[in-house]
Amino acid sequence: WADQERLKWFDRFPAKAQKTVTKSVWGLSRHSAGMMVRFKTDADTIHAKWKVTSSRLGMAHMPPSGVSGLDLYARDGKGKWRWAAATRPSKQEMQVVLLRGIAPGLREYALYLPLYNGTESLEVGVPKGAKFERLAPRKAKPLIFYGTSITHGACASRPGITHPAILGRWFDMPVINIGFSGNGKMHKEVGDLMIEVDAAAYIIDCLPNMNAAMVTERCVPLVKQLRKARPDTPIVLVEDRRFPNSWLVPSKSKFH
Amino acid sequence: WADQERLKWFDRFPAKAQKTVTKSVWGLSRHSAGMMVRFKTDADTIHAKWKVTSSRLGMAHMPPSGVSGLDLYARDGKGKWRWAAATRPSKQEMQVVLLRGIAPGLREYALYLPLYNGTESLEVGVPKGAKFERLAPRKAKPLIFYGTSITHGACASRPGITHPAILGRWFDMPVINIGFSGNGKMHKEVGDLMIEVDAAAYIIDCLPNMNAAMVTERCVPLVKQLRKARPDTPIVLVEDRRFPNSWLVPSKSKFH
Repeated sequence: WADQERLKWFDRFPAKAQKTVTKSVWGLSRHSAGMMVRFKTDADTIHAKWKVTSSRLGMAHMPPSGVSGLDLYARDGKGKWRWAAATRPSKQEMQVVLLRGIAPGLREYALYLPLYNGTESLEVGVPKGAKFERLAPRKAKPLIFYGTSITHGACASRPGITHPAILGRWFDMPVINIGFSGNGKMHKEVGDLMIEVDAAAYIIDCLPNMNAAMVTERCVPLVKQLRKARPDTPIVLVEDRRFPNSWLVPSKSKFH
Repeated sequence: WADQERLKWFDRFPAKAQKTVTKSVWGLSRHSAGMMVRFKTDADTIHAKWKVTSSRLGMAHMPPSGVSGLDLYARDGKGKWRWAAATRPSKQEMQVVLLRGIAPGLREYALYLPLYNGTESLEVGVPKGAKFERLAPRKAKPLIFYGTSITHGACASRPGITHPAILGRWFDMPVINIGFSGNGKMHKEVGDLMIEVDAAAYIIDCLPNMNAAMVTERCVPLVKQLRKARPDTPIVLVEDRRFPNSWLVPSKSKFH
């Protein structure tokens, strides 16, 4: 969707999706979950200034560092992504030193954006005289993760430790996160958007948000829709996982 | 310290410690980290009402569920502790249904208390007619973990997933958590309190809060103090762990 108009720069879906997907999916799609910004710098200090769209910086079960924070990674000498710095948001608009005292060297960085909040604006700063190079989106095909709150990022303490972000670093591939808290339900309208992207793989991980009737109704049609439009793109169907307390509460097993 | 006077019921140290330990350690010792309440019930629903001492329910990097929440575990048919229910605190005084629809059977439960807040009061409720049995503290010797914020519980999303709590369930042994955020510094005055407890083992895990000079000054004396008072109690010295970003920020290595 890189070439399509978006309502806000850091929206996950193009503007037209507002007319097709459910209101809940649209609202959640405006969270910047899964987005990362890459740059190269030799700076010894990296600053960031960012503003989130909602004043609800954290949740009862998820800290502001994950909901509304930034999370910085850097490539080490072997080209491997390693964690560099996290943030502790306390206001809707934050200005912080992400990291200081950085060892000399021109390095690639990746900055992950807030998981359960929208990103209104973002600026990255380095000291005068330091090199700074913006990196354009990679041309490799992305992995698209369509799922639930677990995909979206619940309840990660930092944006870089959702499983799609981890897999993105492991495979060193671009990732598109379309997890929608409570609303990953194999909607055809989401499938319509997915087929527009020439993905490396479609990973469908919606079962915890669905009941048996929904799965019967929607699963095969979604797979056929993707297969028809993209005959060669791998489609990964992720198995259900149980509630860890379903041994104790029999009604929880009804979801499986 | 079970037989000694405490200022509040859920304080970790006896009242007299206020005169000997540092102000910071005393303040942090009033958090209910590591405490758990055990009971047996055959109820199909378990309620809880609790009040925390501070209105700061969460932190920028740790959610209210860990800072101020309760965390329920139950023994399964094989006697193994398994997770049952967590809470999402939104007020200083909370009243919630911890779990409903529980499978029939008389079971032992363990309820872990808030990690980074004091517990002012706690009540557990079951429906009329259900059996409910309070369980006295176990007589087995406890594991005493003396450490830093990591021991204290930073930044666990639930009180039951700190490493002392996990080890307590694995070994099925009582645990005393004396981790003090930023203030686990091998203080002799803390040693004075530790030797009063006939522990199964003393686990000393303070290095991330100390510099080299402090370690030189205090480590051997603390071990000798414990060894002199308790000739047969195992003393475990935990190795330092590095900051995960010290490869990138050389000054972080000075701590090691």
